[in-house]
Amino acid sequence: MKKYSFKDDYSEGAHPEILRILTETNLTQTTGYGEDVFSDKARELIKKYTKNQEADIHFVTGGTQANLIAISSILKPHHSVIAAETAHIEVHEAGAVESTGHKINTIKTKDGKLNPGLIQKVLDAHIDEHMVKPKMVFISNSTETGLIYSLKELKELSDFCKNNNLYLYIDGARLASALTSEKNDLSLKDISELTDIFYIGGTKNGALLGEAIVINNNRLKEDFRFYMKQKGALLAKGRLIGIQFTALFNNGLYFELAKYANESAKKIAEALKKKGYEFMTEPVTNQIFPILPNKLIEKLHKKYDFYVWSEIDDEKSVVRIICSWATNEKYINAFIDEID
Amino acid sequence: MKKYSFKDDYSEGAHPEILRILTETNLTQTTGYGEDVFSDKARELIKKYTKNQEADIHFVTGGTQANLIAISSILKPHHSVIAAETAHIEVHEAGAVESTGHKINTIKTKDGKLNPGLIQKVLDAHIDEHMVKPKMVFISNSTETGLIYSLKELKELSDFCKNNNLYLYIDGARLASALTSEKNDLSLKDISELTDIFYIGGTKNGALLGEAIVINNNRLKEDFRFYMKQKGALLAKGRLIGIQFTALFNNGLYFELAKYANESAKKIAEALKKKGYEFMTEPVTNQIFPILPNKLIEKLHKKYDFYVWSEIDDEKSVVRIICSWATNEKYINAFIDEID
Amino acid sequence: MKKYSFKDDYSEGAHPEILRILTETNLTQTTGYGEDVFSDKARELIKKYTKNQEADIHFVTGGTQANLIAISSILKPHHSVIAAETAHIEVHEAGAVESTGHKINTIKTKDGKLNPGLIQKVLDAHIDEHMVKPKMVFISNSTETGLIYSLKELKELSDFCKNNNLYLYIDGARLASALTSEKNDLSLKDISELTDIFYIGGTKNGALLGEAIVINNNRLKEDFRFYMKQKGALLAKGRLIGIQFTALFNNGLYFELAKYANESAKKIAEALKKKGYEFMTEPVTNQIFPILPNKLIEKLHKKYDFYVWSEIDDEKSVVRIICSWATNEKYINAFIDEID
Amino acid sequence: MKKYSFKDDYSEGAHPEILRILTETNLTQTTGYGEDVFSDKARELIKKYTKNQEADIHFVTGGTQANLIAISSILKPHHSVIAAETAHIEVHEAGAVESTGHKINTIKTKDGKLNPGLIQKVLDAHIDEHMVKPKMVFISNSTETGLIYSLKELKELSDFCKNNNLYLYIDGARLASALTSEKNDLSLKDISELTDIFYIGGTKNGALLGEAIVINNNRLKEDFRFYMKQKGALLAKGRLIGIQFTALFNNGLYFELAKYANESAKKIAEALKKKGYEFMTEPVTNQIFPILPNKLIEKLHKKYDFYVWSEIDDEKSVVRIICSWATNEKYINAFIDEID
Repeated sequence: MKKYSFKDDYSEGAHPEILRILTETNLTQTTGYGEDVFSDKARELIKKYTKNQEADIHFVTGGTQANLIAISSILKPHHSVIAAETAHIEVHEAGAVESTGHKINTIKTKDGKLNPGLIQKVLDAHIDEHMVKPKMVFISNSTETGLIYSLKELKELSDFCKNNNLYLYIDGARLASALTSEKNDLSLKDISELTDIFYIGGTKNGALLGEAIVINNNRLKEDFRFYMKQKGALLAKGRLIGIQFTALFNNGLYFELAKYANESAKKIAEALKKKGYEFMTEPVTNQIFPILPNKLIEKLHKKYDFYVWSEIDDEKSVVRIICSWATNEKYINAFIDEID
Repeated sequence: MKKYSFKDDYSEGAHPEILRILTETNLTQTTGYGEDVFSDKARELIKKYTKNQEADIHFVTGGTQANLIAISSILKPHHSVIAAETAHIEVHEAGAVESTGHKINTIKTKDGKLNPGLIQKVLDAHIDEHMVKPKMVFISNSTETGLIYSLKELKELSDFCKNNNLYLYIDGARLASALTSEKNDLSLKDISELTDIFYIGGTKNGALLGEAIVINNNRLKEDFRFYMKQKGALLAKGRLIGIQFTALFNNGLYFELAKYANESAKKIAEALKKKGYEFMTEPVTNQIFPILPNKLIEKLHKKYDFYVWSEIDDEKSVVRIICSWATNEKYINAFIDEID
Repeated sequence: MKKYSFKDDYSEGAHPEILRILTETNLTQTTGYGEDVFSDKARELIKKYTKNQEADIHFVTGGTQANLIAISSILKPHHSVIAAETAHIEVHEAGAVESTGHKINTIKTKDGKLNPGLIQKVLDAHIDEHMVKPKMVFISNSTETGLIYSLKELKELSDFCKNNNLYLYIDGARLASALTSEKNDLSLKDISELTDIFYIGGTKNGALLGEAIVINNNRLKEDFRFYMKQKGALLAKGRLIGIQFTALFNNGLYFELAKYANESAKKIAEALKKKGYEFMTEPVTNQIFPILPNKLIEKLHKKYDFYVWSEIDDEKSVVRIICSWATNEKYINAFIDEID
Repeated sequence: MKKYSFKDDYSEGAHPEILRILTETNLTQTTGYGEDVFSDKARELIKKYTKNQEADIHFVTGGTQANLIAISSILKPHHSVIAAETAHIEVHEAGAVESTGHKINTIKTKDGKLNPGLIQKVLDAHIDEHMVKPKMVFISNSTETGLIYSLKELKELSDFCKNNNLYLYIDGARLASALTSEKNDLSLKDISELTDIFYIGGTKNGALLGEAIVINNNRLKEDFRFYMKQKGALLAKGRLIGIQFTALFNNGLYFELAKYANESAKKIAEALKKKGYEFMTEPVTNQIFPILPNKLIEKLHKKYDFYVWSEIDDEKSVVRIICSWATNEKYINAFIDEID
């Protein structure tokens, strides 16, 4: 790869501290399949933030795996999951949820975020046994469109779900970027209180791989390791993920990395705003979606990799720029210098 | 863990060379999802052994995942897979294969190995659409019972499968131990020629995680990455496994590690034989199954961890002792010293 | 039920001729599971219309069963089926298709009908292994909105599917009403030539139960009876459906019954038109969707059963009126008399 | 068919009384999908026998459908069902249960019947999340081998299941023949009390098609119609099965028919015993399994159809002879006359 990449937040390996601890602990013998001391330590560290000592925490290798296991472990065969039309499970997981037998009821949204009003319409349309029975609400935070949910918004969703007998699940592939956004007023404790189950993404915030599924609702805890095993998610060397989360949740490294990624993206966003460019969605996390002239896109593409998200018209397109814990400041500045 | 463990071959982390290369390449930006330069390099290195330049090679995180993806990608809904009653997919994968919709036709064997005669009986019993249609044969090499297939045996199975329109698949979680057994006369090239698909296990031979699925039959190659994605097996940082297989297949490290494991197990086996103990199956790989007095087992259990496999009678049991690339010679000798 | 029902076309039992032949043949011993002489006779009679002597014809008990078997027998795990947002498989089959593991890619349409342009957009959006791979197009004829496809429209769809490596499938729950519509220019022969697979609905056109799946594409024929058995669709007394299709396809009874249903619906449509009422979709089959004042709906509901399909505004709603082979002329006239 | 068939109990159509009532009620308009007055009436009639007014009763088209819906509605993804190696779900349903994602844990039995001791061994072997979790016991009554369970045996199974947190399910495809066996001491009331769910077979006892699923355990009742719809089992004209069960359970016709079938089989069994022939299992229902010389089998096969079940040696084989409500006494006598 000759071009510098702003394409995603998983182009590099792991944060050096992770490699250091992996190396340091390498020859310690441990029990397999996630029952090792390192995974236990990681669970303890995470609980310092979620404050929920009763939560069950399980480590899996990636977001699609987290989603398909969480969803299929909870739903009965006739249950469906409600999600935005732009949700990762709907668009970018190759039918993983349907592969476990469940329909996704999609909602057209203006910005990729759900709210009680939108969900109510789906419920209203599902009235008898000729249709699936919606039983779960899926949201991402930060969203696939780079936005975040506020405490008020999440509380409304949580209340609505409780009142309507729906489980609330958060895909936290980029939860770190949400929780460290300047606009954020949510904590891991809030999320633990307001959701039935969610996951804390590691892969996109400095880990080699790994997501931590947190189960808050007691009814969803039983036999969860069976579901993991059945879907091929129980790693023989479960320590590999446990150790990484130990590194990430010790001394707040997890939040530090995400903050750096957000700030890096913000630098680019500010530079673009200064030049008068608009955005598809407000730039508040490490993913930003500026609307740029195709000519500028072409020029930038000569030196940088990033996605063209969608066409606006013959002249302009939305692009997606992502920064991560590993994004090199030198390239941020160089990228900014190219903007006309 | 206070006791030294002979329980499995995944108690430690990775071979140091793997950690070294992971660290060395850590900040190189790569494409995601297994299309990176390191994974490509690993594929090239593996092909030097399989000699099949046309093979497709894909990396997944573990054995259950490899098995469920390989099997479900190949079989149509009414197809079944034939396996020994002791096969990992039948006993120890929490119903992963059935979870993808397929029956396993099990065969009672004397030692965990299949042969054409045994398979023919299954075919004879499946004659119409009221039954599933067997379409695939699953074997493990080395087997769950520590044995290996000879070239002659594998050729007979391969011929039988071709003649009966069955796909032949090898679970190679411990393929390294098989290929480096003193009794072995098979090469990776033979296996590539004689099977439709198989996998080369990394997790149990020095990797942090990772298995390499090798598809030899052209008909099975199409869209394989879709199946991987759908089952949550496409790692964003696919490089993690690619890099490890680069380390393992450079300069034959993969075989060196397994040979050490086999030799370590052999030392223990020889010591046991000298004392007159018998074995459930011939000790030829890194898993050995001696039959020991319960009193001796009790004594050994004070300092060492290992599985009691099955009871023979009130006095004796079969135990499973496993050595790995990481097994410490000091503990082998100490263990041997305890044997009366 | 005290009210007369225009709610559906399956409120009564079977056409008397069907009961007559069931009774007449009752004590004849036959082979089970659809391999009886009556089913064979029915296949021959249907082929007189499809003209495709090579077609495979299988009988199942209902539309959802036909759809789920046809679709899941054809698609590989990562394949999806494209359908209108209003398609029966999307809305009214309780997630039957997803339950077999497959996503439905839905298309928003203006009237429930698909065309190449609409399908092309779905194909354009599915470009790699992070998404499902669309492999099949599902249409209904007549549609869930009472409309039909013309020969030209079906030919365009068929050509498009062939060029894009997609299978074309028709849900023919109400195929009889389509083929006997005044506007129709399609024959069963055309449909056999232009589709890969379709089904001829019996339940909604005079049978007690039963749909005839017709497989035109040779590649889809293999082992179809296995799929039927696996989904619980192979009736021990397969003769029950075979005999009914014998009755329906002897002397054109099938078409006669549908023509009567269409004409009955047309009488009501004409009466409504005369009074100035408009329709959600053009009334051309046995399902009509007039837009009526809520007051009139309320009045009609006192004596008649029918669905309120959707609200237009505070004053008006769309209703669905269905006639069948069994609709009593007396009630048609009485219903018309109530219209103001 | 020129030969007279003792091959199965579904070679003819329906008992004439069923056809009579179908014809009589044919033009009555009813609600669809099993919510009609006839289905309700049938439920009431069945409850007179089960005595459980709280039971939920649902009608489906066949045994495989009943089994796959009942089992998949109850089990969570990691749950398995325990059954005899000879169970219909294991051998003769084309992998229907696995197709819904669940493993069958099979038990080798001496006669096709399960007991607590045999089941305990399966439980003992399933101890952690690397294996499936057995959650249900499947038995057939009468069994696939023509035997029946006594009240004592069923009570033992029921107690064992309750104590071990297992659901008990009876496949009642031939429940009528069991309940009318001379050896039987079970009633429908006993079965309702001792099982969580079972089905009463109609197809093999005089109906055109149809089985009545009876759910006794309250926890299994919720949303059952969703599962039926999703699997294609909710008939638009649900009346078709409702009416048949009305006919069968009015005035005990159901039991009368089965008694006739059993007595017919007994006549043949007695004649065979008189000639000194032995049986694979004791002949107590409408399926008998005599061991006959191959020469006699060959002779009988010239005029009669029946299955050769298994070979005993070069000289002798087990055959299966089945009688039904429709078996003609004339042919029973003629068959007996051929026995040497």
